[in-house]
Amino acid sequence: MLKLRGCALARPAAYDRTMTSSFYAIIPAGGAGTRLWPLSRATRPKFLLDLDGSGRSLLQRTWDRLIEVTDPSRIFVVTGQDHADAVRAQLPELGDDRVLAEPAPRDSMPAIGWAASVIARLDPDAIIGSFAADQIIDDSPAFAEAVRQARIAAEADYVCTIGVSPSGPSTAFGYIESGDNLGLAPAPEARAVVRFAEKPDATTAAAFLATGRHSWNAGMFVSKASVLIGHLRRLHPDLAASLESWADEPERLDATWARLPAIAIDHAIAEPVAAEGGIATVPATFAWNDIGDFGALADLSSGANVESVVLDGSAFISSTTGRPVTVIGLEDAIVVDTGDALLVTTRAHAQRVKQATEAWREKGRADLL
Amino acid sequence: MLKLRGCALARPAAYDRTMTSSFYAIIPAGGAGTRLWPLSRATRPKFLLDLDGSGRSLLQRTWDRLIEVTDPSRIFVVTGQDHADAVRAQLPELGDDRVLAEPAPRDSMPAIGWAASVIARLDPDAIIGSFAADQIIDDSPAFAEAVRQARIAAEADYVCTIGVSPSGPSTAFGYIESGDNLGLAPAPEARAVVRFAEKPDATTAAAFLATGRHSWNAGMFVSKASVLIGHLRRLHPDLAASLESWADEPERLDATWARLPAIAIDHAIAEPVAAEGGIATVPATFAWNDIGDFGALADLSSGANVESVVLDGSAFISSTTGRPVTVIGLEDAIVVDTGDALLVTTRAHAQRVKQATEAWREKGRADLL
Repeated sequence: MLKLRGCALARPAAYDRTMTSSFYAIIPAGGAGTRLWPLSRATRPKFLLDLDGSGRSLLQRTWDRLIEVTDPSRIFVVTGQDHADAVRAQLPELGDDRVLAEPAPRDSMPAIGWAASVIARLDPDAIIGSFAADQIIDDSPAFAEAVRQARIAAEADYVCTIGVSPSGPSTAFGYIESGDNLGLAPAPEARAVVRFAEKPDATTAAAFLATGRHSWNAGMFVSKASVLIGHLRRLHPDLAASLESWADEPERLDATWARLPAIAIDHAIAEPVAAEGGIATVPATFAWNDIGDFGALADLSSGANVESVVLDGSAFISSTTGRPVTVIGLEDAIVVDTGDALLVTTRAHAQRVKQATEAWREKGRADLL
Repeated sequence: MLKLRGCALARPAAYDRTMTSSFYAIIPAGGAGTRLWPLSRATRPKFLLDLDGSGRSLLQRTWDRLIEVTDPSRIFVVTGQDHADAVRAQLPELGDDRVLAEPAPRDSMPAIGWAASVIARLDPDAIIGSFAADQIIDDSPAFAEAVRQARIAAEADYVCTIGVSPSGPSTAFGYIESGDNLGLAPAPEARAVVRFAEKPDATTAAAFLATGRHSWNAGMFVSKASVLIGHLRRLHPDLAASLESWADEPERLDATWARLPAIAIDHAIAEPVAAEGGIATVPATFAWNDIGDFGALADLSSGANVESVVLDGSAFISSTTGRPVTVIGLEDAIVVDTGDALLVTTRAHAQRVKQATEAWREKGRADLL
């Protein structure tokens, strides 16, 4: 439950001096990450894990990236009540009043909308940006530049998404189709968004890449809090009313949250507002990895974090037990060794890990998940 | 070190009544079983393991099979000094004086020859049979009948081997080529052995099967102790002298054992004596499995001994940890999960496990072996 206390906001730092409004970052820290099971568990989801051996969890790396573009006092995390303590433990600089703990998952729109309404109360002129807690972006200057241009578009009342340049015709991501340049001088790369497309099939993905106008939708949105809330009031008035009521009566949250629709910001706002010409996009020039499955993790990580012998083939090995692993005669094998569960698969089947978790649930072994 | 005490031999049981001489069984319990690593270890080799979940180790199953054909007091085990205590623990009915503990492995001829010379001192008319400790034979009556016919041939001064009917043109076993029927009335299936062949290539193996005269050499030999020792004296006089000296001076064993040649009974006696017409063979009609690798174990065992989810493929899973195992997208996968080592391979690569153990040794991890 959120307790609003006076937020002692720091003086705007260098990154804010050229902007009219202050920038607030929202980190939606949700998602089970079941495709990374058994590393990722219900009690220890993907965003809390140090998946690449960097020494920092994905959540902490998101924080590290965001304190380059705003003051730590303007960063909010929305997470499940079960994970609020772990989030606080991993981010000691994050004040209790900036951890918004959801009673139950309702997808990204209620989470972001709630944070937006809380921030709008603190600062009616706020510009907000939402950045998922479970992605890896290594190039802080390029990230900061994308955020800077997105803030310019947001000042012009757009909801601006940061589109990731596709490295190939992936079928694992939604796509953003951009149109005309918006002609915003300080944001020379900002373009109107024509439409959003859901995860395509392989043929469609290849066609998207051929246009040169499509980027991956990484779920990064920047807008004025007031603009976002305005869209919500217009398109989802019941949801907007619920979110705004909590600022006055936080004790009502627990009772009303359960009635909220589970809806993603893409469907709730991005798609309809794009049709109205209200969405902008700026390109991300940084490398980006959402670590959507063990194949993506294998791309990112140099490999075995335990002693191993691999004969006649190749393997990505991830271990939390430290036991030596031997793999013979498999190509692109994936071996994930944890204290209470062992997974063996191949890169080609990495997306099916989610189905395996469902099979364990059906067997009555939800304790493993 | 062997201490010969007076052996209180039991009255001949039913299986002996039709025979002139008493039957003694020798169990050579050696062999590292590295193709079954990490189940099989230097400190806990294959023959000490319950590999098929029967509740009895391979050694214990060999014992169970042999007490159907002779009295327990006439069974001897030859094993490494390091494993003598484990052998005694697994076979409480086996007296200390019937555990012959080798100071170092010297292959099967010194082991069997030593036991033969010990038994010959106890009973100069003894017929001995040697049966490896690491094979599985499930059909006791068929085994007993093969031993019975082999004893008839042994009474006629043959060294008689029990040949296993090939289930296919395996390249993993040596072959026995049989010739004329010996015309021994109580052993109607006993034939002369023309020659022994080493493990053949696939073409040769197929040609062997086409003759109808070839069986697999499972290393089971039955003969008079005196006949075996006679062959040894003639063909390997130094070895024979060493073995026989220990019966009088057991304290000399440790000093002289190290100088023995490492030689298999196949090369030392079976091959040269076959050329002289002194080897017989009787057919085994029982199913036989030497569990030479995890593929053979997978043939034998119904599968996972832990909870598992296997999607899009098939897997043989063997676990000593009880951890649930998930396998996705592999055909004929083999997963062996132990407390301190994990192996993942496929049936097609099962023979290469031995090379993986060598790789671990080269990495300085002999502790895993």
